[in-house]
Amino acid sequence: MEILYGNAIFGQSGGPTSVINASAAGVFIEALAHSDVIGKVYGAAHGIKGILAEEIYDIGQEDPCELELLKTTPSSALGSCRYKLKDATVDETDYLRLLEVFRKYNIRYFFYNGGNDSMDTCNKISKYMQKADWECRVMGVPKTIDNDLFGTDHCPGFASSAKYIATSTMEVYLDSKVYDFGMVTVIELMGRNAGWLTAATAISASKGLGPDLIYLPEIPFDLDQMMSDVRKIYERDNKCLIAVSEGVKSTDGRYIPELVGTVARDAFGHAQLGGTASILSSYIGERLGCKVRGIEFSLLQRCAAHLASKTDVDESYLAGQTAVKSALDGMTDYMVGFERKSTDPYVCEIKLIPLDQVANTEKKIPLDWINSEGNGLLPAFLDYVMPLIAGESSPPMIDGVPRFSSLKKVKAVI
Amino acid sequence: MEILYGNAIFGQSGGPTSVINASAAGVFIEALAHSDVIGKVYGAAHGIKGILAEEIYDIGQEDPCELELLKTTPSSALGSCRYKLKDATVDETDYLRLLEVFRKYNIRYFFYNGGNDSMDTCNKISKYMQKADWECRVMGVPKTIDNDLFGTDHCPGFASSAKYIATSTMEVYLDSKVYDFGMVTVIELMGRNAGWLTAATAISASKGLGPDLIYLPEIPFDLDQMMSDVRKIYERDNKCLIAVSEGVKSTDGRYIPELVGTVARDAFGHAQLGGTASILSSYIGERLGCKVRGIEFSLLQRCAAHLASKTDVDESYLAGQTAVKSALDGMTDYMVGFERKSTDPYVCEIKLIPLDQVANTEKKIPLDWINSEGNGLLPAFLDYVMPLIAGESSPPMIDGVPRFSSLKKVKAVI
Repeated sequence: MEILYGNAIFGQSGGPTSVINASAAGVFIEALAHSDVIGKVYGAAHGIKGILAEEIYDIGQEDPCELELLKTTPSSALGSCRYKLKDATVDETDYLRLLEVFRKYNIRYFFYNGGNDSMDTCNKISKYMQKADWECRVMGVPKTIDNDLFGTDHCPGFASSAKYIATSTMEVYLDSKVYDFGMVTVIELMGRNAGWLTAATAISASKGLGPDLIYLPEIPFDLDQMMSDVRKIYERDNKCLIAVSEGVKSTDGRYIPELVGTVARDAFGHAQLGGTASILSSYIGERLGCKVRGIEFSLLQRCAAHLASKTDVDESYLAGQTAVKSALDGMTDYMVGFERKSTDPYVCEIKLIPLDQVANTEKKIPLDWINSEGNGLLPAFLDYVMPLIAGESSPPMIDGVPRFSSLKKVKAVI
Repeated sequence: MEILYGNAIFGQSGGPTSVINASAAGVFIEALAHSDVIGKVYGAAHGIKGILAEEIYDIGQEDPCELELLKTTPSSALGSCRYKLKDATVDETDYLRLLEVFRKYNIRYFFYNGGNDSMDTCNKISKYMQKADWECRVMGVPKTIDNDLFGTDHCPGFASSAKYIATSTMEVYLDSKVYDFGMVTVIELMGRNAGWLTAATAISASKGLGPDLIYLPEIPFDLDQMMSDVRKIYERDNKCLIAVSEGVKSTDGRYIPELVGTVARDAFGHAQLGGTASILSSYIGERLGCKVRGIEFSLLQRCAAHLASKTDVDESYLAGQTAVKSALDGMTDYMVGFERKSTDPYVCEIKLIPLDQVANTEKKIPLDWINSEGNGLLPAFLDYVMPLIAGESSPPMIDGVPRFSSLKKVKAVI
């Protein structure tokens, strides 16, 4: 295998997670350890936008302790973006600029951390660099709390969100049952098309401290059927806890706020989700004549590094590290993924998935993991998820609060 | 001192916290250790309502391990209530019934855990029992995340909420700054009249990872002034993070939802708070033309035992334990409180506060701890709060999620 000498750049893209910085730590620490081949390790501010704008940091200038702390620091330390590259055949502008920057900084290794769109970006850049005859190894590092990337058993970021959701749901359960009067509580979780995060509340239910009803976007939502489900539970228990994905919709494609009443739309006419818990709980309260509470876990579910899954943090680091090692070994155009060899005991191996197979394919919860009523999960889901949330990771606590990483972000000079 | 032989009962009242069960553990474990004097240790279901309804559990039947686990189990394990006793001179019914139950179960020790209203309940019951010549020692154990009880340096429950809020706010801060486009984020905290919980976000700010602006109910809220504050920050940083108490109101007593637009009212005409973050963030977004996000920490801020303050858990346990010890020593009609002897090092001693001094007096944040602009906290608040959030308490984790206490709740038989 030919050794490719040059510099490396890493960028973060898409919605932040608790562990995207753990993958950054994996890339940075591994790349810096190979200074015989990789001369400079760069970080791009706000992903691909930072490369286009030449907002590039010299990671070699960072304190190694702060890089280590990235493992337990949530969000995207370099900044993120939601920038979609056009097709090079339609508009070459961005690609020409990327090539210019890659030449200027002698970028021979490009690592990109993100979800579906980011893997698509990786793929497009790699193809373009090959066509332009700029030798560059490109590796995707997966992340998404949505857990919807194709070809991998699971995605870094999902398990930490799932662990936080399961724990917080148990705590909310205990709180919601405390009075002797009737009460319905609705918890709203993220996930526009795939119900993985909402399904995580089934972990709480399996411990006897979770929702009575779980509604996922995989199953068409029927408001009347839901009212009938809720009524049954409420009449029996005088309480009902419901977990619902922000993305559930009826067979004709209407979201809960649309089904129940008014819905906010943005300038492009996209339905603004969120607020579902509050809207749905009011709807139920009016019909049952009971007290209700709607709780949106909101951003808290994707940035709670104080209660991350150790398994997830370790795997996220490993994914970043493996991306670097594989590229040094001559691989390119792959996303690092996970293949589960065994669930009990949990054995998961790294696998490399060709980028063009990953891009823009969405993985949902298998329908045969959902109960026949469409309002709960079957044990197969628990078998899948439990090993992923094993172990606790939290940042070092100083003065009673987390000590998160703080990067100097020294601008690269050429 | 005369030894008073008989049985003890403990009840929980008001909104749950992360540590109200730690006080329960303190009462139960201490009382059970004095079986030479206290024959039976009872728990009342749903506080005073459980005594009236004779829903009484025999705590001696519980597994000691489960009582130990109460220290790290949030909410109110026995169930809570919001039941206000009438004045005995107005309506004696409840008191006659209480006396009847106290006689039947030979209750000579009554421990009640709650906030302002609960201390008032304690006080009324004690006075009545004295008048009826039923010898009974009555001790209040404080709890309230609102931290608004008079006569004590702080209240069990507050510090754990504060720690959770400070940590989660730091995490949300990191998440909210991740994109390069303009963005305003509003976090809504609990506290109808006192801003202690909202002020806890100043801990995050002191670490450079917190709100730019903090609005407390102690300061009259001016919507125009706030817009001017936000504009200044936003124009400088392209971002703004705001923490606001659900209870902030204008000089003429209107809450934010009323100031901004419509507000929901319940059947009694009480303004339904909550939704403030969402309403306020929309208002700001329309004026600045930027993306906004409203986040309500909701119940999560009062039940997150997975990130409790060790100091708070220990003090809550101690409060329960002290209530029992003091009653055995012949004390009655006191609430257990805390007196701070020194802040650095933190030294706090137990003190006993006469119940009639506590009841229905509300403690707010001293105005000289708030900055002159009325949108932030001064260092004096940090000096006060930092020792309280020191140390981490979390439940034992099994299968990646908390193992909370599960009581058998065996009905007492006479």
